[in-house]
Amino acid sequence: MKIRIGIYGYGNLGRGIENAIRQNPDMELVAVFTRREPSSLKIGSEGVAVRHASEVDEYIGKIDVMILCGGSATDLPAQTPELAKKFSVVDSFDTHAKIPEHFANVDAAAREGGNIAMISVGWDPGMFSLNRFYAGVILPDGKDYTFWGKGVSQGHSDAIRRIDGVLDAKQYTIPIESALEAVRSGSEPELTTREKHLRECFVVAEEGADKTRIENEIKQMPNYFADYDTVVHFITAEELKRDHSGIPHGGFVIRTGKTGASLEHNHVIEYSLKLDSNPEFTASVIVAFARAVARMSAEGVKGCKTVFDIPPIYLSPKSSEEIIKSLL
Amino acid sequence: MKIRIGIYGYGNLGRGIENAIRQNPDMELVAVFTRREPSSLKIGSEGVAVRHASEVDEYIGKIDVMILCGGSATDLPAQTPELAKKFSVVDSFDTHAKIPEHFANVDAAAREGGNIAMISVGWDPGMFSLNRFYAGVILPDGKDYTFWGKGVSQGHSDAIRRIDGVLDAKQYTIPIESALEAVRSGSEPELTTREKHLRECFVVAEEGADKTRIENEIKQMPNYFADYDTVVHFITAEELKRDHSGIPHGGFVIRTGKTGASLEHNHVIEYSLKLDSNPEFTASVIVAFARAVARMSAEGVKGCKTVFDIPPIYLSPKSSEEIIKSLL
Repeated sequence: MKIRIGIYGYGNLGRGIENAIRQNPDMELVAVFTRREPSSLKIGSEGVAVRHASEVDEYIGKIDVMILCGGSATDLPAQTPELAKKFSVVDSFDTHAKIPEHFANVDAAAREGGNIAMISVGWDPGMFSLNRFYAGVILPDGKDYTFWGKGVSQGHSDAIRRIDGVLDAKQYTIPIESALEAVRSGSEPELTTREKHLRECFVVAEEGADKTRIENEIKQMPNYFADYDTVVHFITAEELKRDHSGIPHGGFVIRTGKTGASLEHNHVIEYSLKLDSNPEFTASVIVAFARAVARMSAEGVKGCKTVFDIPPIYLSPKSSEEIIKSLL
Repeated sequence: MKIRIGIYGYGNLGRGIENAIRQNPDMELVAVFTRREPSSLKIGSEGVAVRHASEVDEYIGKIDVMILCGGSATDLPAQTPELAKKFSVVDSFDTHAKIPEHFANVDAAAREGGNIAMISVGWDPGMFSLNRFYAGVILPDGKDYTFWGKGVSQGHSDAIRRIDGVLDAKQYTIPIESALEAVRSGSEPELTTREKHLRECFVVAEEGADKTRIENEIKQMPNYFADYDTVVHFITAEELKRDHSGIPHGGFVIRTGKTGASLEHNHVIEYSLKLDSNPEFTASVIVAFARAVARMSAEGVKGCKTVFDIPPIYLSPKSSEEIIKSLL
């Protein structure tokens, strides 16, 4: 019996989930739920129902894990608790500061419904969190660093697009190599925001727009750019489409720490990702954790869970014997 | 109440465990067990009992987790099952091919004793296994690579020392940078043994020994060196002591894989370690997992476990709330 998956929200992440399910033969996609008119949606899988979000209750008992593919700003804070009353769910809630509040809301709803709800699954939060965690328990006397990129920041690209005279834009976050090297040396440097990441922007301006003003507005934008060294390139719409239509991302989690009778030995633990497609990789992580949710749910586990709660073995379709033999 | 730890075997790993316990304030070292004459052993901790291995039964009920620090060739296959009848234990059994057999023996003994026995904890097997596992469940269409080094291989150093005319030796395993780069490119190269690692040897020869013969014997030694490009340096005993007395190690676990509607996107997941002291880092990993063993044992879990079975949260002395807030 395959694990029956539902997708709630069909943007980049939802399409990534759909593709990832095809790579995991123990899973099947049962239905895609959308707030748009269902007949307007063309999905990539044949024979899969496309239903309006308002019809989701018809699928209670027919879906083992509902994967929520909405945004963290407004969708998930409402959707995850609501749907956790009806289904076991997984979301990728990534507003770090609001995770404890989201956890509490989702936990109450999931317990009420007798379901499991996993939140904040993906790569950051998600695999980066797990790696910060494992490295921290191994090296208690040490320091963590997270670098992001090279990759596209959707939020920063959007912020540029809101500037008067800008038609389109793409922003890359780039980790600064000398900072990475300083961290890897074990010297535990204190790094400013500016020393860790560079921001590179590719901007399509309206004809006749004042490029100097646009560049200054970008570079002085508080929170988004003012604390960084920012490079702005003006390019044509064609160039943007040709050279910058991908959604790559990635980054580095590094912990350095000391051991020994007088803490005389240094160690460096580094985890890094280099991703051609941010949403597809996020989707691949979510689908593996959805397998764990389905299993733990079948065992009667309830409530809100995070990546820290899941015994790794639950993520794999293979038997424990096979994993021990081939991977240990 | 602190977690009460026993150390069984006091070599490099045992000393590493002793130091790591000092870095984890929720743990205390209760006793060190040795097969040597206990009065001959000088340990680094005051007020800790040093007892003969034959007296271990006196500590049943007084130790929460016994950490076994013997070797994988002959010590652990006998000691782990024997002690798992009496204590919850952790070992670092690292003979990959014999792990399934060791697991079966230890599992039966641990269940008989009502204890947990974790086997093969450290970095490989251990953290490298976990990273191969996580990367594999995320990217099912992909390929794994493990590189070791730069680091000292004890087995290869020993093999050189057995050659006639050799007084002492140290062997470094070095990953070949061009192979690492080929792997990171996502091209999924097929790499021969020779293409992945280089072996560099520092040898102290007896006065008047035939160095050409020694070098040839090293380079032609089957299994150990014949399949590799091997570099041999002859140095003095003083140079060996001055420049090569550390036990550094490390390595890389890389998985590349594809996602997308037509598998058009590449991803690279990389985990790497750079360790000043191989036994101290192994010890640090073991001590974190010993915490999980103590907790799961208190909850009534029994039998043989591996790193794949442990929910990460059990490894940390911090509360779930604190971890979610600071690390997720």
